[in-house]
Amino acid sequence: MTKIPYKIYLEEKEMPKQWYNVRADMKNKPAPILNPATLKPVTKEDLKPVFCDELIDQELDDTTPYIDIPEEIHTFYKMYRPSPLVRAYFLEKALDTPAKIYYKFEGNNTSGSHKLNSAIAQAYYAKQQGLKGVTTETGAGQWGTALSMACSFFGLDCKVYMVKVSYEQKPFRREVMRTYGADVTPSPSDTTQVGIKILEEFPGTTGSLGCAISEAVEAAVTNEGYRYVLGSVLSQVLLHQSVIGLETKTALDKYGIVPDIIIGCAGGGSNLGGLISPFMGEKLRGERDYRFIAVEPASCPSLTRGKYAYDYCDTGKVCPLQKMYTLGSGFMPSANHAGGLRYHGMSSILSQLYADGLMEAVSVEQTAVFEAAQKFARVEGILPAPESSHAIRAAIDEALKCKETGEAKTIVFGLTGTGYFDMTAYQKFNDHEMTDYIPSDADIEKSLSKLPKID
Amino acid sequence: MTKIPYKIYLEEKEMPKQWYNVRADMKNKPAPILNPATLKPVTKEDLKPVFCDELIDQELDDTTPYIDIPEEIHTFYKMYRPSPLVRAYFLEKALDTPAKIYYKFEGNNTSGSHKLNSAIAQAYYAKQQGLKGVTTETGAGQWGTALSMACSFFGLDCKVYMVKVSYEQKPFRREVMRTYGADVTPSPSDTTQVGIKILEEFPGTTGSLGCAISEAVEAAVTNEGYRYVLGSVLSQVLLHQSVIGLETKTALDKYGIVPDIIIGCAGGGSNLGGLISPFMGEKLRGERDYRFIAVEPASCPSLTRGKYAYDYCDTGKVCPLQKMYTLGSGFMPSANHAGGLRYHGMSSILSQLYADGLMEAVSVEQTAVFEAAQKFARVEGILPAPESSHAIRAAIDEALKCKETGEAKTIVFGLTGTGYFDMTAYQKFNDHEMTDYIPSDADIEKSLSKLPKID
Repeated sequence: MTKIPYKIYLEEKEMPKQWYNVRADMKNKPAPILNPATLKPVTKEDLKPVFCDELIDQELDDTTPYIDIPEEIHTFYKMYRPSPLVRAYFLEKALDTPAKIYYKFEGNNTSGSHKLNSAIAQAYYAKQQGLKGVTTETGAGQWGTALSMACSFFGLDCKVYMVKVSYEQKPFRREVMRTYGADVTPSPSDTTQVGIKILEEFPGTTGSLGCAISEAVEAAVTNEGYRYVLGSVLSQVLLHQSVIGLETKTALDKYGIVPDIIIGCAGGGSNLGGLISPFMGEKLRGERDYRFIAVEPASCPSLTRGKYAYDYCDTGKVCPLQKMYTLGSGFMPSANHAGGLRYHGMSSILSQLYADGLMEAVSVEQTAVFEAAQKFARVEGILPAPESSHAIRAAIDEALKCKETGEAKTIVFGLTGTGYFDMTAYQKFNDHEMTDYIPSDADIEKSLSKLPKID
Repeated sequence: MTKIPYKIYLEEKEMPKQWYNVRADMKNKPAPILNPATLKPVTKEDLKPVFCDELIDQELDDTTPYIDIPEEIHTFYKMYRPSPLVRAYFLEKALDTPAKIYYKFEGNNTSGSHKLNSAIAQAYYAKQQGLKGVTTETGAGQWGTALSMACSFFGLDCKVYMVKVSYEQKPFRREVMRTYGADVTPSPSDTTQVGIKILEEFPGTTGSLGCAISEAVEAAVTNEGYRYVLGSVLSQVLLHQSVIGLETKTALDKYGIVPDIIIGCAGGGSNLGGLISPFMGEKLRGERDYRFIAVEPASCPSLTRGKYAYDYCDTGKVCPLQKMYTLGSGFMPSANHAGGLRYHGMSSILSQLYADGLMEAVSVEQTAVFEAAQKFARVEGILPAPESSHAIRAAIDEALKCKETGEAKTIVFGLTGTGYFDMTAYQKFNDHEMTDYIPSDADIEKSLSKLPKID
């Protein structure tokens, strides 16, 4: 039997040439997205002032299974891809489990995560359209960093609205973005009407993601030659992220490995959706069965405790609505939540798959997540991002079940990124000051009571 | 002709099984190291209270060309090695140069640099000897992080004395070390006699590397079952780091590539020495000629402006003396120096090779280094460590010379690590607040006047 190496690297010629659009194989398609002004299904024309033309096509296309990766993007992918599929021999040994554990590691690039896979695609299409630049928002800065790198590569302007509290308290990611030439503005700012209005109403506010989105969208529609781009949730993002799953599948196939369980953390769903897409395609086409597990924080449990309903994608209600598992667009995880994945909703693709019983979901508490992160770091040598560590937690839990039952299951999980810019959270954990928080049913019901009334 | 891929990854079975000890091929061996108490060549017995037994043998062995990499270390190397040899196609295009540029990238591990290559070896031999733990000092924290990871893997205690100003101002690396279970103490501290004495004399001091070394050595010799370990300068460290050069050579040989110039940044010399070792071996044996360029900061120019003489390896004068290019053990680079490579001396191996005219050296100023770093980050997608960026600067300069002359030279440089924990320096650069500093001849003469009188 071939010995499986510690790290499976594909050759460049084995890298995918096309993205896979899982919607093409879904019998129940995700519900159409709605125009926030009319609450009717959006048309391409509705979206044109905000999004790039080609990306609108990708967003609305639920029938084409494979979409060519343009040559320039494929070349850029060679800068940091293929990413390794790692056999977690050290972790298996530490857990003393018969399970075989693999993880697809997306953190070996300066953005520190998988976000770059979609950032470069979105920047490319903006450049192709002849635009001057793009606008976006960022919280802690992973997406903003990825987009800055992508824009720098294509010589596009990149305007990032960064939540003010992060801008001030997490200056390092801000400096990475600036090193890549991005224009980073703390939000709310006086550069937009919506920012000025918010500052008048709440002079001392430290900002929110919802506010930053509103500013970024305004900056896109009011500046000639700019469009707005988004790093998760959208179906186009899952399409681009399918490169993760396609590489994973090719690597597994090379060694004849068939996973039993595929696990990913889920905030907006971009990594999980990208990782599972080609495997889900096989399941949808009835070719092979897998267990898929979405892992979300107990403090922001959209799949496990949210409602499947139409909701706004942003707090500011300027983006289209989509049908998804949601906690309500006004839902905010508790302030003690350090582990990322703070989004109130879930990708409409993943939501539909979950509603159809094709995928499972679990929620985990953050101290358990950081325990898993620390164990993983010590044996596998990679300090994981808090987000990724949700998947580690679930993978360890499944491997420990195998230890009990004696089953040698094959577990694959997505390790989305590194935690080098999250050391404040690790410090809390190291100092035993990290706490857990689970929202009450009343909290969630209150937030869900404000959902828009759409059937 | 075979197209060279963007990244050349060796297979696991192609990884080196032995380290290469370049001293075996040197006609003029490095001068023997001296006992600081007697100023006589050290014996193994002299070193035993401070260093691990096996590492002393490696330190003193200047005749054995190849030394087996123990199986456990080889297995650990598989966690993050082989590291990629990257063809800098994007950089070549940006420079519009006929030169072919390659870099060996050592930053894809949580320590963020090549330091882990020696840390795991040193931790292994400490474990083999049955020790409880090791002590060391760290400035910004790269070496401390690497050693923490290595000790965590083997279940060894790791006591790190971290220069107090770094401990307080750069808490993130400290937290990485703590996540790996290291005991990190701000130096000077009240845990050692030397620390207490310094605190009495200078109550407000924020510490120095020299002081931290003295504390770490005291902690090693006064705690049963501990030894002191060091991350650069020593010949054993260059031996372990030869894994960089051996992998590089195997990767180049696979594609029939013969470098003309090999470039590395040089502080204590561990990366440069490791990278060039096997190539230097060929040159020493008369098999092939290469140009080797050591790149050092203009603010700490030990090779280009120092003296080849016996000197103390540490400010506290507790470590053995070695003959090396030095600026004097009391030399401190200007406070405005942000770019690493602050060591006053140079590996005795590299010093001898330089004295024998087998290697060149250049010094570069830090704003030029950060300009190169930014250019590189934007086209190659990796945000480099300031240290590594010295090599990037020199590689770009050589590639631009090729552009002038039209020569298609092959340039290989060492990209030792990433700059994710150096964003304060990048911020200075982004804000145009970074300045250059070149010490005056008088400054250097003054420092050199305090060299010990040994012939």
